[in-house]
Amino acid sequence: MQPLVELYEIRAEQPSLNDNTGDLDRLRRVVAEQLSGREPVVPYGCLARVAKTFRHAGFVGGAVVNNLPSGPELVDFVANPAQPLVGMALDLGTTHLEAVLLEMASGRRLAEANCENGQIEFGADVLSRIHYGAEPGGLAALHSAIISSVNDLAAELAGRAGLGDGEIRALTVSGNTAMVHFFLNLDPYHLIREPYIPMVNMPDPFPAGELGLAVDPGAPVWVMPGIGSYFGGDLVAGVVASGLGRGGQVSMLIDVGTNAEVIVGNNEWLIACAGAAGPALEGGVARMGMRAGPGAVEHVEIDPESGALTYQTIGGGRPKGICGSGIIDLVAGLYLGRFIDLRGKFRPDRLPDRFVETEEGLAFVLADAAESADSRPVLFGQVDLDAVMRSKAAMYSILTTLVNQVGIGFDELEHIYVAGAFGGHISPRQAIILGMLPDLPLEVFTSIGNSSLAGAELALLDEEARRECRELVKKITYLELNVNQEFMIRFSGSRFIPHTDHTLFPSVPFFND
Amino acid sequence: MQPLVELYEIRAEQPSLNDNTGDLDRLRRVVAEQLSGREPVVPYGCLARVAKTFRHAGFVGGAVVNNLPSGPELVDFVANPAQPLVGMALDLGTTHLEAVLLEMASGRRLAEANCENGQIEFGADVLSRIHYGAEPGGLAALHSAIISSVNDLAAELAGRAGLGDGEIRALTVSGNTAMVHFFLNLDPYHLIREPYIPMVNMPDPFPAGELGLAVDPGAPVWVMPGIGSYFGGDLVAGVVASGLGRGGQVSMLIDVGTNAEVIVGNNEWLIACAGAAGPALEGGVARMGMRAGPGAVEHVEIDPESGALTYQTIGGGRPKGICGSGIIDLVAGLYLGRFIDLRGKFRPDRLPDRFVETEEGLAFVLADAAESADSRPVLFGQVDLDAVMRSKAAMYSILTTLVNQVGIGFDELEHIYVAGAFGGHISPRQAIILGMLPDLPLEVFTSIGNSSLAGAELALLDEEARRECRELVKKITYLELNVNQEFMIRFSGSRFIPHTDHTLFPSVPFFND
Repeated sequence: MQPLVELYEIRAEQPSLNDNTGDLDRLRRVVAEQLSGREPVVPYGCLARVAKTFRHAGFVGGAVVNNLPSGPELVDFVANPAQPLVGMALDLGTTHLEAVLLEMASGRRLAEANCENGQIEFGADVLSRIHYGAEPGGLAALHSAIISSVNDLAAELAGRAGLGDGEIRALTVSGNTAMVHFFLNLDPYHLIREPYIPMVNMPDPFPAGELGLAVDPGAPVWVMPGIGSYFGGDLVAGVVASGLGRGGQVSMLIDVGTNAEVIVGNNEWLIACAGAAGPALEGGVARMGMRAGPGAVEHVEIDPESGALTYQTIGGGRPKGICGSGIIDLVAGLYLGRFIDLRGKFRPDRLPDRFVETEEGLAFVLADAAESADSRPVLFGQVDLDAVMRSKAAMYSILTTLVNQVGIGFDELEHIYVAGAFGGHISPRQAIILGMLPDLPLEVFTSIGNSSLAGAELALLDEEARRECRELVKKITYLELNVNQEFMIRFSGSRFIPHTDHTLFPSVPFFND
Repeated sequence: MQPLVELYEIRAEQPSLNDNTGDLDRLRRVVAEQLSGREPVVPYGCLARVAKTFRHAGFVGGAVVNNLPSGPELVDFVANPAQPLVGMALDLGTTHLEAVLLEMASGRRLAEANCENGQIEFGADVLSRIHYGAEPGGLAALHSAIISSVNDLAAELAGRAGLGDGEIRALTVSGNTAMVHFFLNLDPYHLIREPYIPMVNMPDPFPAGELGLAVDPGAPVWVMPGIGSYFGGDLVAGVVASGLGRGGQVSMLIDVGTNAEVIVGNNEWLIACAGAAGPALEGGVARMGMRAGPGAVEHVEIDPESGALTYQTIGGGRPKGICGSGIIDLVAGLYLGRFIDLRGKFRPDRLPDRFVETEEGLAFVLADAAESADSRPVLFGQVDLDAVMRSKAAMYSILTTLVNQVGIGFDELEHIYVAGAFGGHISPRQAIILGMLPDLPLEVFTSIGNSSLAGAELALLDEEARRECRELVKKITYLELNVNQEFMIRFSGSRFIPHTDHTLFPSVPFFND
């Protein structure tokens, strides 16, 4: 497996007048014997502590070695080699950060936690943060906000696992390209300007101390490499987590977060593209939208005859809002009951009790004030629905453009993996009804949850996964949709439920009014 | 040659929508093509500037690449690839620092300078500084003093070469083991305690920015590796500079600085030892002793009949003091004129005009107040002479013990290289008269000056020299004299001029009174 950091049990000869090897050189020699003769490098920042702890432990204990692409790196020495090393895998989401703490050798999960991305005060979405980053002091503020969020999360995880400060020995980071730029304190200016070039797609690992992270200063920070400005390491992580690039059959991975990112291929080729298709499903964008968490409506059913509505919240309590999977269920149910039309416009006449007028126009009442968690009705407005319509249209257009580009039909896909950090799990059937996903047998679809985090976990634990990431970057061809004519045309055709061409969705009822 | 830092001319493809490689990844790819496919690592600290300068230069210019044992490291990008890169070789002496500025590709010497080691305020010799280092805040003060001296020297050199701050792109550092510990801010405590183990003999190169050096922060700092507490990188540098480890014939290298360090061997084996033999010859120890510099008496002749004295100062001006080579000439001349006896005691009756009584006892007047540069007589006292006697005895004992250990005679040595940063060049004939060096034909001896600095220069310019250094560390066997009985016995026998056993010095006149 070769995790990103490993402990080697060491029993070195005691120094003597006949063997005046320096402390560090002595340790390096013994470690090299365990590394098939490869001499580890000792970074200057770790030199004194490695030599001191080695001597203090009586030249017996455990050597802490980072497995980097450039070679092994010796960063610390511990007296007790039985104490397992711990690493952190981190998903740097635009709205939320999610992380887990793992035992390096066994892969055992010690703790998990998430928190809001502290950058939100500087802009809800990536674009506004990139603009903020161009203002004087903007990048520094964004960088410091995200580092501080990461540090809070690290402290929380360490606390839950009963570890002291700085006992986290390795960190893998998965995020979109803008988040990675902010994390690394790199100017994101060109990310949103043609031809959309990142400062770096594949940063080399570096010691956590250089970013002031609240983990061991010698911990390697391994950032998942990305493909381009709109196709980040989070999706490369997803490819690794899904296994898309390993089998001979062609499969597809769809990641719906702030953007929709899609990749299709097999072990020989991979083509990817991305587009703005997700915001309507992300917590914080729809008025009552929220991240999957206690009180979020995650599933909705509507009786097409009576309009009677049942829903399910995460945790089972009273509703506070609605998360991505709930929104898709809701819109599909509204369509099947004909409470919205083909174009995604409310039909209040069909169910007058469920609609109210608000300052922002008509809204559907998911739960009234008496029923909700905080005595405010949970509403889903026409503006929210319009956003969902744009998102689903974009999604389907992206998928069609991509399979067309590679010259295959949807029916040739062995698997469609649906990932998304936005919480809950999309029900593929409801997404098909919306015309968001292609009309294929349900067994083709597999929900894989937060694959960005899952990929970061694999990279933390397994050299093979890290190698795969670096190879994927060279293997994946990126298709730029911003200048793709076909995409624009397809987008217009997709703004109906399920589609202008309803023969594409034979399993979905088509209503002619 | 492969200098420590190199410039590669780069002409990269412009980024486009069809090639969304990140700026840094694009550069790394083009650099790798010039490095036979080896991808350079970019340290986090250099990431932003490399990507920025590359873009700013229009993707055309020169990539600055450090050649490290762990692989190539890309640290900067310059718009003008015709501008030569500059590096600094530094000898970290206990009393003085000496450095040169070289053009990396051509090896052209741009400037040289030296300064006093700023640590002198904390102790004149290594031992007292190591003791000072154990006091609270002591190590930090010593470290900061030496860094500050290095920075002064770097600024002076850059100024002389007409370069701006931070235009020094690489640094090789040669020093004894204690100086290297102070330079790296490592605790020297164990260096002087049995079994005399350094914290590190062979530190890995690291970026200058981590030590706050006043050179380019990405400049690699390459520290010459040492063998043990009493045998530092300065002597390994000397071995490289002399070529001792390259030929098939057995030769010897003697470096007289604060310590006498000696190494004997050929391309197959090398044995080294060290002992306290030098202090009497170092500036600052003998009362009128000084470093070779303007006003230092570097050569002395005494007419054995009349006692008439002629001398030569560096620069030709009035004398201020006497440097190592002058002291050896003086004592040899005093012996040949029988103005001192076999035991190294003044015989004032033989030349009453030349002796004065001082508070510290009898002293020889090298130049009287009227003749000297600062109206104070230049004196050489009995205490100074006693120190010279101890030093020369130690030196000869070390040499004899060493050749005995390897089972050869002095006459089997092809060359004896005499190095020394203490200035001037020892005249081997005078040193033979003292019984300091073995009585061999003069053509066997070669003075090679400051070989510590010369080795650092080679390491700066040539990969082969750097490889040789690292291999020497594994090849050299160190003989510990502190516990060597033979050395102690020989030392007693060597405290006469030229030696108790005067048959060892057939070319030296022997006086029986």
